[in-house]
Parts: sequence; C-alpha cells; structure tokens
Amino acid sequence: MSTVHEPVVEEAELRSLYADIDAAGLRPLWTITEQLLTPTPRPKAVPWLWPASVMRPLAERAIRLVPVERGGERRVLSLTNPGLGGRPYAAGTLWGALQCLGPRETAPAHRHTPGAIRFVIEGEGVWTTVDGDACDMRPGDLVLTPGGAWHDHANGGEGNMFWFDGLDLPMVEALDAVFFEQHPELNQPIVGPHNRSEAAFAADGGPSAGRTMVEGVVTGPLDPTPSPLLIYRWEATDERLTALAAQGERPLVSVEFTNPHSGASVLPTLACAMHRIVRGGASRPVRRSGNTIFVVFRGEGHSVIEGRRFDWRAGDMFVVPSWSAAEHASAGGADLFGIGDAPVLRALGLYREETLPGPQEVTGVFDPEGFTR
Amino acid sequence: MSTVHEPVVEEAELRSLYADIDAAGLRPLWTITEQLLTPTPRPKAVPWLWPASVMRPLAERAIRLVPVERGGERRVLSLTNPGLGGRPYAAGTLWGALQCLGPRETAPAHRHTPGAIRFVIEGEGVWTTVDGDACDMRPGDLVLTPGGAWHDHANGGEGNMFWFDGLDLPMVEALDAVFFEQHPELNQPIVGPHNRSEAAFAADGGPSAGRTMVEGVVTGPLDPTPSPLLIYRWEATDERLTALAAQGERPLVSVEFTNPHSGASVLPTLACAMHRIVRGGASRPVRRSGNTIFVVFRGEGHSVIEGRRFDWRAGDMFVVPSWSAAEHASAGGADLFGIGDAPVLRALGLYREETLPGPQEVTGVFDPEGFTR
Amino acid sequence: MSTVHEPVVEEAELRSLYADIDAAGLRPLWTITEQLLTPTPRPKAVPWLWPASVMRPLAERAIRLVPVERGGERRVLSLTNPGLGGRPYAAGTLWGALQCLGPRETAPAHRHTPGAIRFVIEGEGVWTTVDGDACDMRPGDLVLTPGGAWHDHANGGEGNMFWFDGLDLPMVEALDAVFFEQHPELNQPIVGPHNRSEAAFAADGGPSAGRTMVEGVVTGPLDPTPSPLLIYRWEATDERLTALAAQGERPLVSVEFTNPHSGASVLPTLACAMHRIVRGGASRPVRRSGNTIFVVFRGEGHSVIEGRRFDWRAGDMFVVPSWSAAEHASAGGADLFGIGDAPVLRALGLYREETLPGPQEVTGVFDPEGFTR
Amino acid sequence: MSTVHEPVVEEAELRSLYADIDAAGLRPLWTITEQLLTPTPRPKAVPWLWPASVMRPLAERAIRLVPVERGGERRVLSLTNPGLGGRPYAAGTLWGALQCLGPRETAPAHRHTPGAIRFVIEGEGVWTTVDGDACDMRPGDLVLTPGGAWHDHANGGEGNMFWFDGLDLPMVEALDAVFFEQHPELNQPIVGPHNRSEAAFAADGGPSAGRTMVEGVVTGPLDPTPSPLLIYRWEATDERLTALAAQGERPLVSVEFTNPHSGASVLPTLACAMHRIVRGGASRPVRRSGNTIFVVFRGEGHSVIEGRRFDWRAGDMFVVPSWSAAEHASAGGADLFGIGDAPVLRALGLYREETLPGPQEVTGVFDPEGFTR
Repeated sequence: MSTVHEPVVEEAELRSLYADIDAAGLRPLWTITEQLLTPTPRPKAVPWLWPASVMRPLAERAIRLVPVERGGERRVLSLTNPGLGGRPYAAGTLWGALQCLGPRETAPAHRHTPGAIRFVIEGEGVWTTVDGDACDMRPGDLVLTPGGAWHDHANGGEGNMFWFDGLDLPMVEALDAVFFEQHPELNQPIVGPHNRSEAAFAADGGPSAGRTMVEGVVTGPLDPTPSPLLIYRWEATDERLTALAAQGERPLVSVEFTNPHSGASVLPTLACAMHRIVRGGASRPVRRSGNTIFVVFRGEGHSVIEGRRFDWRAGDMFVVPSWSAAEHASAGGADLFGIGDAPVLRALGLYREETLPGPQEVTGVFDPEGFTR
Repeated sequence: MSTVHEPVVEEAELRSLYADIDAAGLRPLWTITEQLLTPTPRPKAVPWLWPASVMRPLAERAIRLVPVERGGERRVLSLTNPGLGGRPYAAGTLWGALQCLGPRETAPAHRHTPGAIRFVIEGEGVWTTVDGDACDMRPGDLVLTPGGAWHDHANGGEGNMFWFDGLDLPMVEALDAVFFEQHPELNQPIVGPHNRSEAAFAADGGPSAGRTMVEGVVTGPLDPTPSPLLIYRWEATDERLTALAAQGERPLVSVEFTNPHSGASVLPTLACAMHRIVRGGASRPVRRSGNTIFVVFRGEGHSVIEGRRFDWRAGDMFVVPSWSAAEHASAGGADLFGIGDAPVLRALGLYREETLPGPQEVTGVFDPEGFTR
Repeated sequence: MSTVHEPVVEEAELRSLYADIDAAGLRPLWTITEQLLTPTPRPKAVPWLWPASVMRPLAERAIRLVPVERGGERRVLSLTNPGLGGRPYAAGTLWGALQCLGPRETAPAHRHTPGAIRFVIEGEGVWTTVDGDACDMRPGDLVLTPGGAWHDHANGGEGNMFWFDGLDLPMVEALDAVFFEQHPELNQPIVGPHNRSEAAFAADGGPSAGRTMVEGVVTGPLDPTPSPLLIYRWEATDERLTALAAQGERPLVSVEFTNPHSGASVLPTLACAMHRIVRGGASRPVRRSGNTIFVVFRGEGHSVIEGRRFDWRAGDMFVVPSWSAAEHASAGGADLFGIGDAPVLRALGLYREETLPGPQEVTGVFDPEGFTR
Repeated sequence: MSTVHEPVVEEAELRSLYADIDAAGLRPLWTITEQLLTPTPRPKAVPWLWPASVMRPLAERAIRLVPVERGGERRVLSLTNPGLGGRPYAAGTLWGALQCLGPRETAPAHRHTPGAIRFVIEGEGVWTTVDGDACDMRPGDLVLTPGGAWHDHANGGEGNMFWFDGLDLPMVEALDAVFFEQHPELNQPIVGPHNRSEAAFAADGGPSAGRTMVEGVVTGPLDPTPSPLLIYRWEATDERLTALAAQGERPLVSVEFTNPHSGASVLPTLACAMHRIVRGGASRPVRRSGNTIFVVFRGEGHSVIEGRRFDWRAGDMFVVPSWSAAEHASAGGADLFGIGDAPVLRALGLYREETLPGPQEVTGVFDPEGFTR
C-alpha cells in the first residue's frame, strides 16, 4: 500500500465514479495497467508460415483471371497474419506479399510514403522503374523502391515472374503518415540506360563505392534518406556468403544490404539481409524486439519459433514476431532472405536482444498444408 | 487498362479464387488498395477536447475513493479518443492523461520502454524521482521520465497535485516493443540532493550548458538517447517567451524544449514545446503529419480544427490528429503546452507540412459540456 | 595544491626528465594544458573579406591566360585565410573559392569524398552534371555536388560565368579521409533531360516533395546521405524570403535549404542558407561554434565581426570564424548566402550559441583595398 | 585538353597574375590540385609504437618529481606522433596518453567539449568522478568522461596507478570547438554511492539494460548524446570474448562497447572495442578510413602496418593511421584495446574499408628501443 489514507469505499460511489469517467471520454489507468504495460512485448501477430505450394498456384490463377489495372494497381497476394484480426499484414509493422506479372504486363506508376523492397523469387524479364531508373530484376536480386519514389513494374518477357514485396506500410499507417499519389501517366518515362544506380554506386573500388553489404546482421546508423543504390545483385550476395561460409565454422553466416553512402540499412525503416545456413548448420535461439519476415530462397530446413517447428522449403515465407525465440537449421544448407524493422527500434532506443542458453524444446509442429485461421 | 490480354472472366471462377486466397491466409491487394493507400493520412483519431471542468472533479473523486497501489501503479485518467474504438489513447501514437496525487501519497517505482513527460498543471509538493534524481515539480514545469528510467512520484505536501502525462505508449505498442518492470522497492532511493540534473545541465554559460530551448518549433536531430536534463522550469520558459513576444509582430511565439547535449527533442520519440498566443493573436492554419496534444496552461481562446471551433480555457486538453488543419487564437492571450511525435516522422522521412492560404471557414462548434462518444 | 606530497625537486633532475620524455616521443601535458584546453574556441582563421573588385579582374585574367585541363581540373581561386599559415582555406573547416568558365569551356569530370556546393554569382549557360544529371545554373541558384558524386562543369554559352564554390575539404582532410578519382572520360555522359532531380523532387505538393527550405537557420537531423534534390532555384528562394520579410518586423529573415527527404541540411557536412536583411535592418550580435562563409548576392551593407567593421557589396565574400561575435546591417537591404559546418557540430554535441545583449562597440574598420597578409 | 581556345601565354603575364593572386589572399587551385585531392588518404601521422618499457619508468619519475596541480590539471604523457610536426597527438584526430596518479593524489575537477575515455592498465584504488558519480577503476575497465561532463580523478589507495587516456581533442580542435572550464572546487562532490551508472545501466535483463557490448567491430547509429553507462567492467568483457573465442575458428574476436540506450558507440566521436587474438591467430590485413590507437592489455605479438612489423607486449601503445594496411598476430594469444573515430566517418559518409587478398610482405621492423623522431 503506497497511500497514507485508505478510505472506506462505498461500492456504489465507486461504480458511479467509473460510469462518470467513462461518460467523460476518459479511462482509469489503474484498471488496465497490466494489459498495457507488459513485462515483454506481446505482439498480436503470431508465428506463421505461408507455403509456396499454396501461394504459387493461387498466383497463377490470379494471373489468368485478374488484370492489373489502375485503381487496383498491383497483382499482389498479401500475407495476412491470423493474429491481426483481419488486417492484411504479415506482422504488426510489416507488410509481406507475393507479387506477380504475366508476359507483357505492366503495373501502373505511383508513389507513396511507405517504403518497399522487392526480392525476386522466380522468372525474368521484369524491370522496376524507380524515379526514371529501370532496374532489371533476376532471381535473388533485391530492388528498392524507397518511400516517395515513383515506381512501376513492367514485364518485357514471355513468362510469368514472381517476387516478394516487403513494405513498412503497417508502421507508416500506425504513424498516421500514409500519402499516396498516382503518376499522371500509366507508366513513367525511363531516363537513360537501365540500371543507372548500379552503374553509379555498385562499383567495387572507387571512392564513392563504400560497402554495400556488411557481415553479420547489424543495423548501421539510421539514415533518413534511402540508399541511392537501388539494386543489389544475387551474384555479389552469393559471392560474399560463399567467402564467409568458407572462412570458419559458423553454422549461419549473414550479410546485411547497406546504403553505400552511409553504411545504414537500405531504407530508414527496413533492414534487409541474406542468411546462409551451412550444410548441417543450426543457429542458436535468439529473441529480438522487432518483427522479421523470412523468404526461403534456396534449400530446405526448419525453424523453431517459440517451441513450434516450422518446416520450410524454397519459396515459403514465414514470420517471426517481436521477442519470439527463433532458431534455424538445415541438413542440406539453405539461403534465407530476411527483412525487419530493427533500424527504427534501434534509433528509438527500443532494441533488445537475448540469446537463449540452449536449443528450445520442440512442443509442436506447424502444419502448412492443414492450416486454417 | 495496363494489361495486354483481357480474359473473359468466369464470375464463378473468380469467386472460387477469392475463397481459396482467403483460406490460404492471403488477401488480394487489388480489392483494398484504396483503403490502404490513401492520398493523405486518415487518422482514426478525431479532433477532440477534454475540458478541465469535467476532468478535475473526476480526479478529485478518484483521490477520495481510489488508493494508489502496486499493480494499478498510478492514479491516471487517460484521454480516450472516440475514434480509436475504445483504446485508451488520445491519438494513434500518443497517450495523454491527467494524473493526480493527494497529500503524502506516493506512486510506486517502475520502468518501461515507453518514454513519458509530465507537465504540471496545479499544486505543489510533488517530486518525481528519475534514476535516483528527485525532481521537484511546480506549475508550468516540464519533467522527463525517459524510456528505461526508474521513476516514481511522491507528494510531500499537504494539498492535491495535478499534472498532464504524455507518453509514446501507443507508438511503442505498435512497434511491438513494450517492456515493463516493477522496482524491487515500492519507492527507489533518492541519491544526493534533489534536482541534480538541473544543477548539472541547466546552467547558462558553461560548455555543457548548450541550449535547452529553441525558438520556433523545429525538431532537431533525432537523438536516440534522451536528454540528460530532466526538468525545465516554468520561469525560464516564461522569460524566453516574453522576450520573443516583445520582439516582433508574430501572433504566436514558440519555444521547443531541447536536449542540451545535442539540440534534439527531449526524447527520441517526443517533442515538447510551449506556445504563447499574444493578446488578440491568431495563427495561420497549418497541416502537419503527426499527432499533437495541447494542454492549455494559462488564458482562454479557441482553435479551429478541420473547420470546427474548439473553445478552451486553462486546464483543458485537446488533440489535433495528423494532417488536420489547425489554427489558434486568443483575445486575451494564452499559453499552450504542446507534445507531438514529429521527431520520429522526420527521422523516417515522413514529415510533411502545409500552410493554408487563409483562415478556415468555421462550420461547427465543439460543445465540451454535451459531448458523448 | 592537489597533491599530498611535494617533493623538493632537483631542477637538474626535472630537466633530465623532460629531455627523456621528449626523446621518447612523448609530451608532458601539464606544460601545455592552457594552450590546448582554451575556455572558448581559438580558431586560427581570422575574420576576413575578399572583395569582388579584386577577385573578379583576377578571374578574368585567369580565363584569358590559363586553360582548364585534366590534372589542374578546375579554374578556381581559393580564399586563403591569412591565419591559416598558407593553407588555401577560408576557415579551419571550410573551403571557399571563386570558380569561372569562359565560353564553350568544360572542366573535367571527377569525384571525391569532400562534398561541394556551387552558388551562382553571375552569368549563364553553364550546367553542372552530377552522376549523369545536368543541372542548369543561373544567378542565385544553389547546386549540390555531394561527396562521391561524379561531377563536371560545362559552359554551353557565349559569356564568362562565375560562381562560388564551398567545400568541406579542410574538414575531410583533418579526418584523414580524402579520396579522389578522375572519371575515365573527360566529361561524363548526360542521362536524360537536364535538371532531372528538380523534376523529381522540387514539386510543390506531392508526397515526396517535403520541404526544401525552412524558415530560420536551424540544422535539422544530420542525414549521412546527401539531398537527392541537386538544385535550388533563386526564384523559389526569393519568393520565400519576400513572404517572410512581408510578415513581420524582423530585421533579418532566413531560409535554410534542406533535403526534401529528411529535412536535414543539404549535405551531411554543410548547411546552406539565404539571409535577407530588410531595408534599414540590423541583426543582433551572435556567437556560434563553427565557421561560416558569407557571399554577398545583392545589395550592400556591413558586418561587425569581433568589433571590426567589414563593409561589403555584391560579389564580396567574407568569413566569420567559430565563436566570433557577428552582426549584419544594411541601409538599402541585401541578400547574403551563407554556408557553415553546423550539422557536424550539432551531431557531435559541440554546437553552442550565444546572443550578445547589445551591439558591439566598433573598434576598427577592415580595409578591403589595402589588405595584405 | 578541355578548352576550346588555347591562348599563347606570355610567361611574364602569367607570373604577374600569380603574384597578384597571391597578394589578394587567393590561391590558384590548379597548381595544387594533386596535393589536395589525393587518390586515397595521406595522413600526416605515421604508424608508430610507444613501448611500456620506455613510458612506464618516465611516468614513475614524473610521479616522484611533478605534483598534480590546478593549471597543469593532469599528470599525463601524451603520445606524440613524429609525423605531426610537434603537435602532441597520436594521430590526426586522436589524442592518446599515459596518465598516472600516486597514492592519495587527486587531479582537479574540470570539464571540456572534447570527450575522453580511460582504459585501465595497472593498479587500483583510483576512482574517476563524472558529474557526481564516482566510478571505481580496475585493470581492464573502460571509463567514460563524455564531453561536457565534470570529471576528476582521485587515488584513495597506497600504490601508483596507470591508465590510458583517449580523447577526440585533435578532432574537436580541428572543428574549432574546444571549450574548457575549471570546476569552482578542486574536487567536485560525490553524490550517493560509487558506481551509480553501473547499478542503473549494466544490469543483465531488465528493459533498460540493452546491449552494452556487440560482437564484431561495427559502429552503430551515431548518438549525439553519450552513453549513460560510464564504466564497463573487465570481467564482463573477458567473459564475452571467451564465449566468442570458444565458438569458432576465428583468429581474432572483438566486442565493441556500446551505449545501452541506442546501441551506438560509447561517445559520439569515439568507438572503443576489445580484440582478442587467439593462440596462434593472425588476422587478415585491412585498410580503413579513420585512425585507431591500440593498447596492448595482455600477451605479446606483432602487427604488420604498411609492410613494417611492430612487435608489442603488454602496456605498449601503437597507432594505425587512416587507410594504412594493418594485420595482427600472436603466438600465445593477446588482448588489444582499440579506440577510433569511425562513428564520425560513418555518420558523414566517409567510411571506407578494404580487405587485402593476403598477408602483407614484411619489408622492415620497427625498433622500439632505438627510435628517434
């Protein structure tokens, strides 16, 4: 008891007070403290996995049945976490989705404050034009469409193409800061040759080149301006991971994609990394504040998230919500693309991390074929 | 039409596709694009005002009826914006509340990742202890309890005391990053004399003094570490505003409270300012991305928010949601304390601002006595 | 005396100790403390002014006599502060210079880690190409060539053209971080139409537009990535200053040029602003940590710097070293371009500012015609 | 040739122009371009080593002969790099020194804008008081005295004590931003128990604890406010390095000390790390922009810097100037403390790093006994 007086409370008087507080548009904190101020984060999103075997046929049906038009803007299937009450988000702060374009299709030009990245899963022939710079996309490539940049997608090829879309939309919505605008033209003009940012910033030795990937997954300084390099090629990523894996005995090696100017994450709100689990490797379980979506690029394996085993293979997508214990393993080796909101958490002094002493006990298995919400 | 083929869609086939997409835990973006990507922010919170004439008697009844105890932690009435579906928040990113303590009461020590500020409305005798530094509170003072700092409140005086609480709790919750911990003791020990941070950092000339208030409301560099100065005295604020008002013809002068080390906002997530409307002054209407709560400290006047007039007087609190046009006026002069989330919006490249060409047309009046949710 | 023992020092023993310390490549701090740790900054640079009446004819002679070639790279006359012992810098952290190109001349393409800005004084027909984007330059325009960006200048016109160059070169040199590289071609290819960054980022309302000028001279958050907008037009600057001057009674109104993405200074190291002294206006004396160079764009007037009066007119350049008291006045009104290093000082917690209570006593007059070093 | 006309230059006319340019306080850039804009950094400082076997006896003689007094302020022997023309600095941006106190001595309280760290080499009984918080120092501990904080040192024990001082003084001097002030008292009052910041911020799990060391040497976001944790204990550092070394096959493991609020470097200007070379380990040669000082804490080994071998043992200090290739090896294992300016370089977009393909060829040996300047 922290008070010096303890009035004999008339129950009726108290009920009347609560009714009047409610009528006044107020809430008594003391009745809801424990719901609001939890010992550790209680994300509404739950650990979840969306298998490629389910998503891919749906995307193909959509290509056949649904045109890409102004208004709808994109042919995108968004990961809808069952914990979020129907909101079309993969996690509380992250949008994740599978986007696809059929042969000769284009998706109209627009811009918005939310920032986006594209990680290519399969196909070729598409370019994404970002403020006039057409970026050719191939499997394993990471393409940025920063907040505020005009962007559209065009498939100049003869086949379907599929890629992962990652956005900070839920975060920008929570900050009440979504602005959106359609380009006056269906597609913006392309200026100069394709891949200009790559020519300007991806070079490997000049003074402005800097470091476009850093070992380990570490968020550099928050940079409020996004990276001027808009495309990161798979070949360079693969080469770097191969060198790291060759070097030692680590079960999982990682590179973070970075802004060549500042060493920061690629966008102010989003950090992107590629993780390679070596053959037979198993990482230690870690909890982190902030949400992460993983996209399996190559190989198969499993993750244990809060005691539940998630088996995955190439093309699957899964989410590790904030402060969920997670560890990853692969018998034959695998490559995982990861995207998270850590730059914001670190810049606001909210980042926490904890390595658990040993592997989690597995108490259940997620069944990707039989899931229902 | 942006596609090169337009299949004859079988309506049934499409319905079946949507059902399967839903069953797979996915959502077709093209059906919800316009809800998600709005031209300008559509905050769920609405412009609202909570009058002192209603809040104050409720707080006094609560002092009489409800003890302050461990578990409930605080005697706080939180502003509950009717647009937020029952969540106890003033706006999408901001918590605002009236806190009170009776004579000789204390509120228990705890800490949490959300950061808080206290702006004193009335009374004396309370100190807030922050990581061992007891900060004495008087009307008009601003006190910081940064995220992660142990803090408790104690009323050593003989009267009731009332202050405004501002927190970033909704933002930290949206980021899935709330951590909370009770102090092992009911109240933490006080170390050394009261007001140590004031002695160390508020001095007016030494090298570490820096500038603790800046003219105009401008968010300096985001500083991930909060201000080491924990209390800003009303006397200094008043003196600065008086000098600014004397200087020119501006209808409204403002100072922002800043971190003396870096010139940043007081907390990484929250900017605080004091605004003085000069006698007969009326500011121009402005829209800003980000939410703001105002607390009327002295005087009376009115604000026009999205065309609706809100009359206010000392002790009233009101909220201007993101991108709402707002202008302020006072016949006799008034002082408004303001708190907002602009540092985060600027650091993430999401800040926008627009001054409207002339005063808004007033299309309605908010009636503080007759409001219901 | 802070020690508990005071040995009877043998003078010879002490001399021998000092000799041995010196021989070991060490220095005894206690003998030089007061030189190193000064109460306030003691910049080596002195307040100085370079008159257009002297610089301009020299530049014209140079156009006639000295070709612009690879190796020399630029036809630039650098302000050489007499306090800096012959180093070709305007102040300890800033390079300032007059650059000129004759008709049909080009200056070769290169890039370097130091960042640069160009402020146009006179002439037309030149464009500066920055990473493929050709920026047309007219009097009063500000053009950025950020660190690491390929840049060259070309005069497509029939007359001479003159502009001010401001660089952070001395700072980057002090940080041992100068990298320089010549472009493989004499001039880089231009991509697309001229002024692409202006088309993309200078628009006045869309979501990515942001605010490219802010009232008052305030350094926003340090942004490690430079502004994507490369050119700021005089017309917009003039319009904004005219509106500000019309608004009130301030003797001097200012706008800072900012990064539209983040509200930061134009480059991580350099802040640029335009100041308008209204007819008959005189500003209050202020000391600031950090160096500033001013370029007189229009009008005439004088500044008092550390008690000495500097008379100036259009085209003159002068420097206010760190912590020097400075105030500015003009009978007929004038526009001053200013460039300084404040973003770095603020980001490192080193910024200090002090307004003096009243005008300085004038104890001398700087004579621009008769100066010698 | 980049110009369209090539005048027949009269040699005399050109000589006259250069004389007039010089007389006007200007410099023709084209004659000095190659000195100023170098392909890679050309630090004036040279790789150098100061052996403990030389420094330690000099410090002991100084304890005997030189009292610590107000004015001289500290008994400090500063590393004086022979490349810097007599300036008492270890490198262009860094001050390094050996400080010592005899039994019952105190060094007077003062504060200054330059930030400092102390790394304890030998002895016990000293505490450093920082803004009232007395921090007890033991070998291997790192203590911060951030810019602007009052600090003094007191030896309450019976023996001599020696520690390394690292400051950003040369950088702050280059920025013309040195402010210094003596405390009104010889020693400031101690507030509360010793080691308060440790009690508040070094805890191992609570919400404010955060991460005070991170694996790998990576500079987090620049935080303009210094770390609130003022002391980092050797026991924690050692434990972390032991765990890292046990984990894999890396020849050198590192932890960076970080601000528990933000994950940033300990001070805005200075990053500190501890490196452990495992038994028989040899690191790969790396060049980095920015300067680094190393202090050997335990063991012996050698470094190759720009082809020259530097043999070292416990207590030695050596400097790796910007962009110098450096690699480290130890047959028996060793611990090196390192301090550098990387946070500033990264925040300004100036950081570069390059790993060389293989070990450097050793072309000479630095002889610590026989060096002369």
